[in-house]
Amino acid sequence: MDPRTDNGLRARDLDRRETGNLIGSDKVEGTAVYSHANEKIGKIERVMIDKPSGKVAYAVMSFGGFLGIGDDHYPIPWSKLTYDESVGGYRTDLAKADLEDAPRFSADDDFDWENREAGMSVYNHYGIPPYWV
Amino acid sequence: MDPRTDNGLRARDLDRRETGNLIGSDKVEGTAVYSHANEKIGKIERVMIDKPSGKVAYAVMSFGGFLGIGDDHYPIPWSKLTYDESVGGYRTDLAKADLEDAPRFSADDDFDWENREAGMSVYNHYGIPPYWV
Repeated sequence: MDPRTDNGLRARDLDRRETGNLIGSDKVEGTAVYSHANEKIGKIERVMIDKPSGKVAYAVMSFGGFLGIGDDHYPIPWSKLTYDESVGGYRTDLAKADLEDAPRFSADDDFDWENREAGMSVYNHYGIPPYWV
Repeated sequence: MDPRTDNGLRARDLDRRETGNLIGSDKVEGTAVYSHANEKIGKIERVMIDKPSGKVAYAVMSFGGFLGIGDDHYPIPWSKLTYDESVGGYRTDLAKADLEDAPRFSADDDFDWENREAGMSVYNHYGIPPYWV
């Protein structure tokens, strides 16, 4: 297949969006997330950026549902994600069971992003200091 | 027009991706950038995230070209961008002329993201301390 088809170009283009320590936001979006046990537990929808500090406050992972309907959305700390080239996705130290009681929101509502208690519940769940400290 | 069309839903959905201090990466992507003099000087393609620190290292703004061909791509410091609701885009203190000698790359090459001198040339151009200090 001609690698210069649109898809080929797009794939090659996205490959360049990860280079050593830096990664493009459009490469993060859509990337699969795997549990410690190598199960796919979701994919990253986007990252939420804290505007004043320029820091990634959360990665938002979705799981379940069909065509975006009925998905659950999990805000997770950026530092939980480690890119693993061998699987082409993020490897985490999470088990699927860790998501059962994890903070989440559905398509019909939204996370209360500005609420520090809600944010703290995320960081406490994953045992990581929050992005604002 | 029924606001619950796909486009309406998508727009409403994207609106929720900016909430006080936090903004979704998919909302940043595609957002117009305006000069101090209110000229549109480009749009944001993506942000480049420094994986170890979780900080936005650069926003990549594109300008010129047609359908992505011949575009110039400018890495700019995140702190140069201030969202202005009244124009639905980023307001900067830049003039169009500031881009004439700004560090850039074309679609055929890529910025040397891992090169600290190249990175320093960006931050020096905009007069801001680099993200890694």
